[in-house]
Amino acid sequence: MKVSQYQKEKADEFRSLHNAKKILVLPNAWDVPSARVFEDAGFPAIATSSAALAVSVGYPDGERIRKEELFSVVKKIAGVLSVPLSVDIESGFGATKISLTDTIRRVIGAGGVGINIEDISDFGKKTLLPVEKQVERIREVRKTSDSLGIPLLINARTDAYRFGTGDERTKLDETIRRERAYEAAGADCLYPMGLTGRESILTFVKAVNKPVNIMARKGTPVITELQEIGVKRLSLGPGAMYATMGLLRKIAQELKEKGTYEILLTGAITFDELTALAEPRRFTK
Amino acid sequence: MKVSQYQKEKADEFRSLHNAKKILVLPNAWDVPSARVFEDAGFPAIATSSAALAVSVGYPDGERIRKEELFSVVKKIAGVLSVPLSVDIESGFGATKISLTDTIRRVIGAGGVGINIEDISDFGKKTLLPVEKQVERIREVRKTSDSLGIPLLINARTDAYRFGTGDERTKLDETIRRERAYEAAGADCLYPMGLTGRESILTFVKAVNKPVNIMARKGTPVITELQEIGVKRLSLGPGAMYATMGLLRKIAQELKEKGTYEILLTGAITFDELTALAEPRRFTK
Repeated sequence: MKVSQYQKEKADEFRSLHNAKKILVLPNAWDVPSARVFEDAGFPAIATSSAALAVSVGYPDGERIRKEELFSVVKKIAGVLSVPLSVDIESGFGATKISLTDTIRRVIGAGGVGINIEDISDFGKKTLLPVEKQVERIREVRKTSDSLGIPLLINARTDAYRFGTGDERTKLDETIRRERAYEAAGADCLYPMGLTGRESILTFVKAVNKPVNIMARKGTPVITELQEIGVKRLSLGPGAMYATMGLLRKIAQELKEKGTYEILLTGAITFDELTALAEPRRFTK
Repeated sequence: MKVSQYQKEKADEFRSLHNAKKILVLPNAWDVPSARVFEDAGFPAIATSSAALAVSVGYPDGERIRKEELFSVVKKIAGVLSVPLSVDIESGFGATKISLTDTIRRVIGAGGVGINIEDISDFGKKTLLPVEKQVERIREVRKTSDSLGIPLLINARTDAYRFGTGDERTKLDETIRRERAYEAAGADCLYPMGLTGRESILTFVKAVNKPVNIMARKGTPVITELQEIGVKRLSLGPGAMYATMGLLRKIAQELKEKGTYEILLTGAITFDELTALAEPRRFTK
């Protein structure tokens, strides 16, 4: 597998954004135009959201999308962006070493320079992989990506806080225990899913060494506050798609109930602006 | 080519919506979740928007999308809906009779029961096909779809009002002349693109016999008014995607400028609601 100098540079660029003084705000897109809107707005990197991307092509979240389809979309997005792209690969789309390695090759083949990988073993039952198993998988990702010449920025997510048992402190301790193991295994960024309170985030940040990713949701401290307490990266998860689908509902409701188009027309972009979102920025800069 | 009884029923259902007393409000979607939001809101049929669909998979409008990709998305949308789906096929994706027939077969194969077909000969140069040529093509569509057992609802669009020369009245006359020829050729619904003023719409409605489709845009009369002057169908074109992309811009701007998430979180749907949009409604009703 041959990787381009361009992609190597994007990988370095993405990595360095995690070591900057300023927090990296990394918005999550699901298709070409959503990614391009965020790039046009000046964000220095874009990520995908697994849930948003899957739903946009007709699958629920939880590794139900076909790998071919996932990476076909990823390739399109990477192909139009001039900034680095990180790919949410859920739990890696592979129970075996071979299938996980295949996923990593596809990420790189499609132009990705970073991944999100989570430690969920069963989406429906909300169960986690044993920590040793996930450590082994992160080592495998590290080895595979480095050997291919693109040292992927690995964002290791744990769902221990959401799916764990016991009180808040017990779940937070398990979250820290897991993420420490993941950083030792080669993760570059740690993503304690479900942490939103300032205190728990601060405790977590102090307990680990690598950059920490937090998701913007109800209750998440504002960006300056996150930066103050040492968070290095903020992502949106499927948030932007939740918002656009919420807007569609409101447009629909107004059409049905009032027979008018105010929400439809207010703040809308134009035909030319829409069409421009399909033009690669990478070749126009 | 075998068509299902289900699809025949959807075709009848769609056709009858054009002969109802109540105006048909037909929102345009571009992917599975946007279509499902509109269906959930209670619209009795959904259409695609060619521009929105193309951009969502990375192509500008104007028949630049590969046919395979277009109909792959159409098939997914038709597959999750329980209401009829009409497909925007621009100018038919085919300069020859064979390629136009192929497009019609694909519409039906993908589950569509209606089409939009326009009389543009060159998207970049904004030129129209000779009216005799478009008449021939509409006859061909009529013949092909009827012979396949799915009498597609043909919405014949003309861009004579937008691309024509002369004063408003001259352009309106040409619009009427063309649409009369299209209805004689077998079109079921007439779509005078660019007409927004009440007076010009009324003049048009009086001059033709078949149901008239108008697009909701700045200046379009509200739905009750359209119904009063005899318009039978209202569509949104790419409007709903213009609106969602406008919202994404505002979310991005707030993140960049204020470091907060208010627009992101206000009116957003939930994870479960998003996931539900990928579930086929067709099999859950």
